[in-house]
Amino acid sequence: SSSTTPIKATLFPGDGIGPEIAESVKQVFTAADVAIDWDEHYVSTEVDPRTNSFLTRESLQSVLDNKVGLKGPMATPIGKGHRSLNLTLRKELNLYANVRPCYSLPGYKTRYDDVDLITIRENTEGEYSGLEHQVVKGVVESIKIITRKASMRVAEYAFLYAKTHGRKKVSAIHKANIMRKTDGLFLQCCDEVAEKYPEIEYEKVVIDNCCMMLVKNPTLFDVLVMPNLYGDIISDLCAGLVGGLGLTPSCNIGEDGIALAEAVHGSAPDIAGKNLANPTALLLSGVMMLRHLKLNKQAEQIHSAIINTIAEGKYRTADLGGTSTTTEFTKAICDHL
Amino acid sequence: SSSTTPIKATLFPGDGIGPEIAESVKQVFTAADVAIDWDEHYVSTEVDPRTNSFLTRESLQSVLDNKVGLKGPMATPIGKGHRSLNLTLRKELNLYANVRPCYSLPGYKTRYDDVDLITIRENTEGEYSGLEHQVVKGVVESIKIITRKASMRVAEYAFLYAKTHGRKKVSAIHKANIMRKTDGLFLQCCDEVAEKYPEIEYEKVVIDNCCMMLVKNPTLFDVLVMPNLYGDIISDLCAGLVGGLGLTPSCNIGEDGIALAEAVHGSAPDIAGKNLANPTALLLSGVMMLRHLKLNKQAEQIHSAIINTIAEGKYRTADLGGTSTTTEFTKAICDHL
Ligand SMILES: CC(C)[C@H](C(=O)O)[C@@H](O)C(=O)O
Ligand SMILES: CC(C)[C@H](C(=O)O)[C@@H](O)C(=O)O
Repeated sequence: SSSTTPIKATLFPGDGIGPEIAESVKQVFTAADVAIDWDEHYVSTEVDPRTNSFLTRESLQSVLDNKVGLKGPMATPIGKGHRSLNLTLRKELNLYANVRPCYSLPGYKTRYDDVDLITIRENTEGEYSGLEHQVVKGVVESIKIITRKASMRVAEYAFLYAKTHGRKKVSAIHKANIMRKTDGLFLQCCDEVAEKYPEIEYEKVVIDNCCMMLVKNPTLFDVLVMPNLYGDIISDLCAGLVGGLGLTPSCNIGEDGIALAEAVHGSAPDIAGKNLANPTALLLSGVMMLRHLKLNKQAEQIHSAIINTIAEGKYRTADLGGTSTTTEFTKAICDHL
Repeated sequence: SSSTTPIKATLFPGDGIGPEIAESVKQVFTAADVAIDWDEHYVSTEVDPRTNSFLTRESLQSVLDNKVGLKGPMATPIGKGHRSLNLTLRKELNLYANVRPCYSLPGYKTRYDDVDLITIRENTEGEYSGLEHQVVKGVVESIKIITRKASMRVAEYAFLYAKTHGRKKVSAIHKANIMRKTDGLFLQCCDEVAEKYPEIEYEKVVIDNCCMMLVKNPTLFDVLVMPNLYGDIISDLCAGLVGGLGLTPSCNIGEDGIALAEAVHGSAPDIAGKNLANPTALLLSGVMMLRHLKLNKQAEQIHSAIINTIAEGKYRTADLGGTSTTTEFTKAICDHL
């Protein structure tokens, strides 16, 4: 067993399959001797008036205190005017950058080999401003906000990430030929930051062209940085190249060194409680959390155990064409450790 | 030679490789005995104050009079505050629907087989409103406008297209979980129109999920209808699945039965004038124009000649891995007629 003092980390198991895949993470972390003291928060079933959402102030405070956390899928009740839980977390915790690595998993074949992309998404503004109104009957508008502050912050994060992770190129994705002012400001910030990183190749790619290139030849890209909605779209596209959101991790980065790793797939209510869920995305998100904590050795061990289990193919959950239960797949990973 | 009175159609050869690929279309149409009397309009090099663009009032009037046209790539001079020529055409002619079929070309192998998708894009509003301003220093906003009028119009076009082309399903693409009012209105219009077509399957798909599904399994989709920017993104993505914009046609539909077919790739100034351009996208757009004119027999003949020439593989331009010039490739198509 580990001799170090456990690190406190917030855990939001989330809804649907969330608790099952969170259990898998706990078991794998234990098997790898990772000393994490989980501060578990279930999303309450009552709206907290202080957050106008089902997330309580206490849950948010836990992430602010621990500065690190892991989050499963959270379903927002539809049609009641409440804020999405995911968006509440991003806004309240000021999680300004959403990092989603997408890489081909050895042994899990898709149409694409050798995909190795990092999408870095501005996570707080843009098309997600929430500012919308009806101008006159039958005419509605939504407002996209781009600020220099948020754009600089995410651009700086992207270039620093590229540098510290041995990446060669950053592509800024935009539609500034149409949204000259908003996307233009975003690009201008990327240009400025790029100047400080002469060793990193830098290019600007229009989003439509980017999507075409990604499906034709994803190896043309390395790190991609972009405004909120483009990040939402392109990160899902990239996940699709390597098998989907069930296999790709993500981590949200905030001010003051906060990191909230997150499985971005849905809560899959249809298979919840049936021991059928694939915990890979949450496990790999947990690995991102460990790397953030500089627990690199254990991160690599767990990462290899997951990859090797999938590659061997004997234990796979139904979404990957196998017949294993969540617990069987989890046990197979633990056996690799 | 043809015995029918020639139909007058506007031709914008466009910039860069435009004139060469337009010449290819003229030759192929002549070889197929298509009686078109081309009303050729070169984009002028002076801004017409009546359009604030390089497109003159006379050129626009030609399309309004002929009600049908074909357009090559047009490059907009950057940084002079002029409106994009493509956008000027769409707005001035009220070309409300942009139809882009994407299908696997027999004999031209990509990672995907059996792609057969139709993207139908709202072409006049949304994120392309041109409404943008700086709120305070470092804070800019763009306004996305969605109207009931334009949404109903494009939704009606999409369902009518599906019905008249023997299509089974229409998917409305949106991000109404975030842009509840704008994309919400768009969806509501699609819902209303869908009710009138009980024989056509109808579904709503969030854009990020749509992009993931498209790269995983494009055969899940049939006709896709969406607001302007999503159409821009998804039509390029779909084009990428089958080889890129050099191979995919498009047609813009306006009020009063106007149809302007268009190759949506760039003007490729690097290879302009070198007899190297691939005319396929403009040729296939010409085929769409012929179908619009109900010249179905000749449309099918030309379509087959293009497809067969590419499938045989003896004559291909450099972008498809061949060594043929534009004229050699064009002659090969004419020989198939
Ligand atoms: C669930 C939804 C609000 C969310 C988003 O749009 O950001 C999701 O798609 C994501 O990418 O995390
Ligand atoms: C050139 C550009 C303005 C245009 C658009 O954004 O619509 C192009 O990408 C297209 O799809 O026709």
